[in-house]
Amino acid sequence: YLFVENTRYVRQLAVIALILLSFFELPSYCSPHRQCVAVDGTSASLSLSGVPYISPLPQFLFNIFLLAILIFFFIYDTLYLPGTALHIHPKRLSLLFSALVLDAVYVIAFAGYPPFRLAPFLRALLPLFYFHSLRECTTAILAVLNPFFDVVTIVALFTFIFGWIVTLVFHDVPEADRYFGNLVTGLYSAFTSLTTADWPMQIMAVLDVSRPSALLFLAFILIGVLMLFNVLLAVVYNAYTGHMEDLVVRKLQDRRYSLGLAYDVLTEQDGVVTLPDVRLLFDELRKNKKHSHMDDQQTQLLFTALDRDGDETISRDEFLGIVDALQLRFVLELENVSPVERFFPSFYHTEGWQNVAKYVRSKSFSYVIDMVMIVNVLVVLLESTMDLREKDTPKSVLIFAAIECGFSFVYILEMVAKTASQGFDRYWRDYGNRFDFAVTWLLLAGAIYALYPYTENDRTIVRYLVLLRCLRLFTLFAKMPRFRKLVQVFTVLVPASAPLFSFFFLSLYVFTAAGVEMFGGLIYRNNPALNPDNNQLVDAFVGNDYWTLNFNDMAAGWYTLFSSVIVAYLTEIAEAIAATSRFGSWTKWFFILNFVVNSLIVSNCVLAFVVDLFVMQDEDDEDELILSDLQGRYGSK
Amino acid sequence: YLFVENTRYVRQLAVIALILLSFFELPSYCSPHRQCVAVDGTSASLSLSGVPYISPLPQFLFNIFLLAILIFFFIYDTLYLPGTALHIHPKRLSLLFSALVLDAVYVIAFAGYPPFRLAPFLRALLPLFYFHSLRECTTAILAVLNPFFDVVTIVALFTFIFGWIVTLVFHDVPEADRYFGNLVTGLYSAFTSLTTADWPMQIMAVLDVSRPSALLFLAFILIGVLMLFNVLLAVVYNAYTGHMEDLVVRKLQDRRYSLGLAYDVLTEQDGVVTLPDVRLLFDELRKNKKHSHMDDQQTQLLFTALDRDGDETISRDEFLGIVDALQLRFVLELENVSPVERFFPSFYHTEGWQNVAKYVRSKSFSYVIDMVMIVNVLVVLLESTMDLREKDTPKSVLIFAAIECGFSFVYILEMVAKTASQGFDRYWRDYGNRFDFAVTWLLLAGAIYALYPYTENDRTIVRYLVLLRCLRLFTLFAKMPRFRKLVQVFTVLVPASAPLFSFFFLSLYVFTAAGVEMFGGLIYRNNPALNPDNNQLVDAFVGNDYWTLNFNDMAAGWYTLFSSVIVAYLTEIAEAIAATSRFGSWTKWFFILNFVVNSLIVSNCVLAFVVDLFVMQDEDDEDELILSDLQGRYGSK
Repeated sequence: YLFVENTRYVRQLAVIALILLSFFELPSYCSPHRQCVAVDGTSASLSLSGVPYISPLPQFLFNIFLLAILIFFFIYDTLYLPGTALHIHPKRLSLLFSALVLDAVYVIAFAGYPPFRLAPFLRALLPLFYFHSLRECTTAILAVLNPFFDVVTIVALFTFIFGWIVTLVFHDVPEADRYFGNLVTGLYSAFTSLTTADWPMQIMAVLDVSRPSALLFLAFILIGVLMLFNVLLAVVYNAYTGHMEDLVVRKLQDRRYSLGLAYDVLTEQDGVVTLPDVRLLFDELRKNKKHSHMDDQQTQLLFTALDRDGDETISRDEFLGIVDALQLRFVLELENVSPVERFFPSFYHTEGWQNVAKYVRSKSFSYVIDMVMIVNVLVVLLESTMDLREKDTPKSVLIFAAIECGFSFVYILEMVAKTASQGFDRYWRDYGNRFDFAVTWLLLAGAIYALYPYTENDRTIVRYLVLLRCLRLFTLFAKMPRFRKLVQVFTVLVPASAPLFSFFFLSLYVFTAAGVEMFGGLIYRNNPALNPDNNQLVDAFVGNDYWTLNFNDMAAGWYTLFSSVIVAYLTEIAEAIAATSRFGSWTKWFFILNFVVNSLIVSNCVLAFVVDLFVMQDEDDEDELILSDLQGRYGSK
Repeated sequence: YLFVENTRYVRQLAVIALILLSFFELPSYCSPHRQCVAVDGTSASLSLSGVPYISPLPQFLFNIFLLAILIFFFIYDTLYLPGTALHIHPKRLSLLFSALVLDAVYVIAFAGYPPFRLAPFLRALLPLFYFHSLRECTTAILAVLNPFFDVVTIVALFTFIFGWIVTLVFHDVPEADRYFGNLVTGLYSAFTSLTTADWPMQIMAVLDVSRPSALLFLAFILIGVLMLFNVLLAVVYNAYTGHMEDLVVRKLQDRRYSLGLAYDVLTEQDGVVTLPDVRLLFDELRKNKKHSHMDDQQTQLLFTALDRDGDETISRDEFLGIVDALQLRFVLELENVSPVERFFPSFYHTEGWQNVAKYVRSKSFSYVIDMVMIVNVLVVLLESTMDLREKDTPKSVLIFAAIECGFSFVYILEMVAKTASQGFDRYWRDYGNRFDFAVTWLLLAGAIYALYPYTENDRTIVRYLVLLRCLRLFTLFAKMPRFRKLVQVFTVLVPASAPLFSFFFLSLYVFTAAGVEMFGGLIYRNNPALNPDNNQLVDAFVGNDYWTLNFNDMAAGWYTLFSSVIVAYLTEIAEAIAATSRFGSWTKWFFILNFVVNSLIVSNCVLAFVVDLFVMQDEDDEDELILSDLQGRYGSK
């Protein structure tokens, strides 16, 4: 089991690598005869979105190599640990593996140019087997679907009726023919109005003819955008939080159950759990990396903490607190360690060092560092203003780099002082400090690099690095009492949102794969279908120079769909694809589906998640008091 | 006091009329020498946004007339009811009145063409004095401001750092000069990126030069739009619901306190509240219109309901239930009344009528009506398809109108049957029935009207009317168990959201008034400042034909700002105004402020309100059980 735990990262990395591999593979519309299309129409170029492609053979080898890793671990697990539920649905996983291997062989059979590839879709399923949090996130999103579609039905009917009315009223108006010429375009225009994608384009065409029609659109937008879409979000929020509450309750029940089983095992011999039993348990736990720091004294302490009624045995109820107690232990441990105390005990106890340590822990030290940071930001501002006004010389850049180095050394000194007085583990526990740590070393490297002979090419890198410093400003916020709670929310939010953002990425990835299969190679500058003289509908696409929005490869396609989701709906690319694709205006359903899935469902889930987390954090404020109270109680023992 | 209650509507109507008057007044940039500007540049025309203007004298008279009404009531209230707190802050209100009268005089002193008008801003304050719900809504939004600005600070800093980085990196790129040429435009572009207004315009300019820069923008948008803006909403939601909970608690406390005082008054004489006391109380209450239906038998019933322990006196705790009991009484009353029973008691008790009434109340009757409705919608679909394909003849229109008449009569029959069997009050209690009632009569009128000789002009009206029928489809949803809860939410949501939407209207109104004062008359077709050849920045405005977006009068200005809010931020109009206004690019702050106030604060409050209401409705499901339990208990007595 420990082997599985320790190799979990290898498996997960292999899955991620497989998905990223899709971005470096040749799109399936390319062939040796018909080269991949670059946007500028030079079909020889392969740098569609600037991503370098891997040629068929190394691609095949890499693909097989990653698959081999996954399959090896899969077979190992099923052979040596048949009883444990390591893989959910092992049969489905083995099916998936065979499909992926078949796909790899199939690609090589076509010498790297297959007419159609299933791999991206299959690969998108892999993370569900390997990332528990992503699986949870998927079930949460699926739980939202049912109430979501109830509202969507109402929204769709509402859009249908509005589109119908508007078409009936305006289909005779030549200026609005493009938007409301017939029922199909009318309904589509009503839909795009609701997404506010082209707003206020549709209405402009109509407004010149009939001013009161503005009121009709106004009512539609008010009801649709401000009412229906908000109700949609409310429904998603309600379903999402409801699901999450159920999940937490179920998890707690599971934990109680498992701990109950463990307790039964421990009490098998003599019916009670005493100190030696717990010691035995912890000897086992110590084999697991996470708990390897535990020593005998701590076991004793933990036992005392668990044994609330002080009868030298642990009852079943007391045993259920073991997980909390295990986490508590770390806090206790961290409070005891300081490297100076550990390695130079004699020096640690001198009065001089104690004063230094006290000063470092004091507020005035932190103020001094904050002042240094502000001065540093002002220097950076000055430097970049000189850069923007083209007043900088190689000499000035050197001087600034030297100043930067000075600042970097101050920060390193701060870091050393802090770790020496608090201990590294405690320093590292704070996310702000981790950020400081990374930025400090990066900036020192950058500053030293800038001191080297100055070339124009290096400028961009130096610019990025210098401005990284400004991000340190955010750590200042964490120190202001007004912002402390907000920053705390962000430190919880960022790691907690990872599964949802991964899901968002994967969802777009699947849509992109489908888009590249269907619409790859359609968008290029001299495509006759994209001439505004032939087709009035693509003038916005061409006029705005949206050529980089295309499905000519995975990277470009992903970016196109991401842009669509961010602005809710992008009519321009939908029209351009509809004009060039052999599916005609049916392709718009692809973008409408993308809107529903990614803009409405996934984005609203992200929103629901953030609101839920924020509200929870607010409620937790009281719980935290209890926790710190608990810590205080156990610390005194 | 009753007089005040009964004239409340007159006051409120006068306030609304005063605000609407602003839309029909000449904008202050107009003068007899320099006519108001119409979009097409013909300065003679006054129909800027199609709204007819009232000339100075009648405008003055109407203004004074409305003010006189309000001031009359104000003086009456302060003279005859000095003790009651009818007007909050009477001093402020009298100041406001004097300012408004001064403004009216000042306008007439300039013969209707004053250089500047304060009236719209002053008028916007009036509703706060006259609409209690709007005042509550305003305090709720003000309560949100404090935590809101904490997050906005972080968003602003984030935008600043990103804009700075992007400007530093891309200011040398000629293609991106328009967006990132200097620090000011760079920061502004970063801001518009974050609003996703021009997305993906800014990035397109940059993408052709450096593909990896897409990742920079991607990170910015991901963090900014999906994280920070969601946190912004979460903060608003949290603050809004927190404020609302406090409000409800405070209201309940107020009610307890007032009822306690009333109880003290009733017990002054003999120390207990008995049936005669309650009778006396209800005699007083009967003078108020709302409770005029009460008779002696009901008083008796109510007394029994209140006296829970059955000792013929009402204790203090029991008295606190009086408000709930008063509302309960109405339900009891409604259940007893049926017009047939009341007016034709002998007929009511015949078996035939009882069967009819039973059938009307049965499910199969409702199914039949639903089927008729669906057939009707299909007929409407057929009719409009013929219309769209230009296959309709005057004769076919007549035939369809006749069919429509037939359907209308069926609906009227249904209405009559329902009211006869249930009683009108009970029928009217259901929002769905009210909607049916209004639509049915309107459609009958429309159908009869269409039977009259057919002219092309009438077509549009008939089209609207026929499609109104489709809105009846929504009443079908209410009958499906799957959608019942949703429809219920909507019936609560629509009336409850009125104050918030009024606030939204007023907030836009104030911004519009400022916009018309500052930017009135700037946007017209042959304005040299709006020639794309002179100014590259206005090409989007001119290219999209956005001429109807302007501040040439109140109606157009309101519509312009509304459009801005709907799409979060409209760069096109901001650029056009900046190009024409004497304030130059400072005018963009006006639009940025509008974005912060209306797009971020007010829109997010609307969203918070909808989510809060939805979550509350969900929790109420349990409470409702208790209420119906209560009703059952009292109904049996």
